[in-house]
Amino acid sequence: MIDLKAYLANRKALIEAALEKFLLPTATWPTSLHQAMRYSMMAGGKRLRPILVLAGCEAVAGNVEIAIPTACAMEMIHTYSLIHDDLPAMDDDDLRRGHPTNHKVYGEAIAILAGDSLLTEAFSMIAKTPIPPERTAQLLKVIALIADAAGSRGMAGGQVVDLESEHKKISAEELKKIHVHKTGKLIQASVMAGAMLGRGSEAQINNLSDYGMNIGLAFQIADDILDIEGGEAIGKDVGSDLAKEKSTYPSVLGMKTSRQLAHDLIEQALTNLQGFPAHADPLRAIAQYVINRKN
Amino acid sequence: MIDLKAYLANRKALIEAALEKFLLPTATWPTSLHQAMRYSMMAGGKRLRPILVLAGCEAVAGNVEIAIPTACAMEMIHTYSLIHDDLPAMDDDDLRRGHPTNHKVYGEAIAILAGDSLLTEAFSMIAKTPIPPERTAQLLKVIALIADAAGSRGMAGGQVVDLESEHKKISAEELKKIHVHKTGKLIQASVMAGAMLGRGSEAQINNLSDYGMNIGLAFQIADDILDIEGGEAIGKDVGSDLAKEKSTYPSVLGMKTSRQLAHDLIEQALTNLQGFPAHADPLRAIAQYVINRKN
Repeated sequence: MIDLKAYLANRKALIEAALEKFLLPTATWPTSLHQAMRYSMMAGGKRLRPILVLAGCEAVAGNVEIAIPTACAMEMIHTYSLIHDDLPAMDDDDLRRGHPTNHKVYGEAIAILAGDSLLTEAFSMIAKTPIPPERTAQLLKVIALIADAAGSRGMAGGQVVDLESEHKKISAEELKKIHVHKTGKLIQASVMAGAMLGRGSEAQINNLSDYGMNIGLAFQIADDILDIEGGEAIGKDVGSDLAKEKSTYPSVLGMKTSRQLAHDLIEQALTNLQGFPAHADPLRAIAQYVINRKN
Repeated sequence: MIDLKAYLANRKALIEAALEKFLLPTATWPTSLHQAMRYSMMAGGKRLRPILVLAGCEAVAGNVEIAIPTACAMEMIHTYSLIHDDLPAMDDDDLRRGHPTNHKVYGEAIAILAGDSLLTEAFSMIAKTPIPPERTAQLLKVIALIADAAGSRGMAGGQVVDLESEHKKISAEELKKIHVHKTGKLIQASVMAGAMLGRGSEAQINNLSDYGMNIGLAFQIADDILDIEGGEAIGKDVGSDLAKEKSTYPSVLGMKTSRQLAHDLIEQALTNLQGFPAHADPLRAIAQYVINRKN
C-alpha cells in the first residue's frame, strides 16, 4: 500500500497550485466577485473530488497532466454547490470549514453570483484543456458526464429533495436516493472523468463508476456520523443536521447499522478495483480514508 | 429584405419545439425542480439569443441543424440569468414577462436551484451535439466562448456591477461597461457560436463578433427606453428601473441622445455585415428590429 498521508498532501498541493494559476486574480473586474470566488475556493477543504480525478486517471495508467484542468473544475463545481447550499434560502449556515460562509462575508447577491460564476468557469476550464485533436470527442463526453452529474438529474436534484425532506420522516430508501444524487454522482463523475481522460477501457470506466458511487455513499454516511460525533472538527456547528431535523443515516438506521453500511460500501468499492494493478493503490487507500477520516 | 415577422415566428417555433424535446419532462424526479425549470423556460419571451445562434449560422451559409442544441443552450443560460436576477437578494422582481417570477411560484431555494440546473444543463446539451469527429475541437471552442461570455468576465460580472451601481450616479462609460458585460457578451457569443458551428471564416466570425456587441448594446438601450415608455408591454412594472434608482441610458444620457446612440450602433452593426451575402439578411433585419420592437 501507499503512504496515503503523503499522497494526499502531494495531490492537494498540486491542485492548489493549479487553482492558484487558473483562478482569475482578485484584482480582475469586478473585484468583489473575484474576491468572493477565491475566498471560497481557497478556504481549505480536503480537495477530495479533484484528487479522485487524478487518482482515477492514474488507476488506468494515464498521464495525470491532462486531467488537471478537469480536477480543478470539479473542485469549482463542488465549491459552487457549498456556497449555494449555505445560503439563507437553503441550509442557512453561517460557518463552513471554520470560516464565515460566503454570503456572510460578501452578501447574498455576490454569493449567488460567485457560485454561478464558479460553475460556469468550470466548464470553460475543461473545454480549454490542451488535448490532441483525436481526443477532443472524449473531452466532450467528460463535459456531458460532469454536467449531468451536477445538474437536475444529479447533485442539484439531490439538494432539492434534501431540502424538501427537512422536518419529515423519510425511509432509508429515500435517504439513499438523496445521497446518491447530492453527493454520490459528483464523486462518481470525478473518478470516471479521470479514467476517461487517462484513456481507460470501457470495462475499467464501468468498474470505477461503481467504485465512485460506493465511496460517495460511504463518504456521506461518514459525514452524517461526524456531524453528530465530531462536528467541530469539520468546521460546522455540532449537530447542525439535528437542529434542522434533517434525516441522516444515524437518525434513520441508527449509529451501529450506519457504521456497518459504510464499512460494507467500502468493501464493495475495493472489490470494484480487483482487476486493477498497483496503479489503483491510491484509490484503494482513499476508500479506507473516506470512512476513517476525522474531518 | 426578408419578411422578418414570418422569419421570427418560424424560428421561435423551431426553438420552442426543440426545447420541448430537450427539456426533461416535469414528471422527472425531483418534479418540483423540473417544473420550475420548465415554468421559466416556457414562459414566452422573444427567443432572441437562440434565433441569433441560428441566424449567425445561416449568415455564413452553414447548416442550422447542428446549431440547434447550442441555440437552446443559450436560451437556457439567458433564462437562468433572469431567474437569479429576479431573486429577492438581487433585483427582487415579482413579475417577468407578465407572469409571477420563479421564486414567487416555487420559493427561493427551488428558484436558485432551477437556475443552477438550467445553466448546468446548457453545457450538457452543447457537449452532446451530434457532430462529426473532425469538428469536435470546434465544439469545445464554442463551449469555452459561451462559458466566458456567461461567467465572471461576462454576464455574471456585469450583473454584479449593475447591482453595486444601484442608488449611485455613474458615468456613461461605466454604464456601457456594465451593459457590454451584462447583455452584450451573451448576445455576441450567440451570433459567434452560430457562425463557428456554421464553419464561418475567422474574418466572418470577427465581423459577427462586432455585429453582436453592437446590437447587444443597442438592445439594452432600447430596453431602458421601453422601461420608461412602455414597461407594461414587456411584462414588468413601468419604471421599475427608476424605482430602484438604477442608472439607465435615458437617465445618464437623456432620452434623445440614447435614441441616437441606439440608432448609431445599429448603423455600425449593418456595416459589420457589409461583406456578407444575402444569407445575412436575417441578421440585417434583426438589427433593425432590436431598436424598433415594442416589447
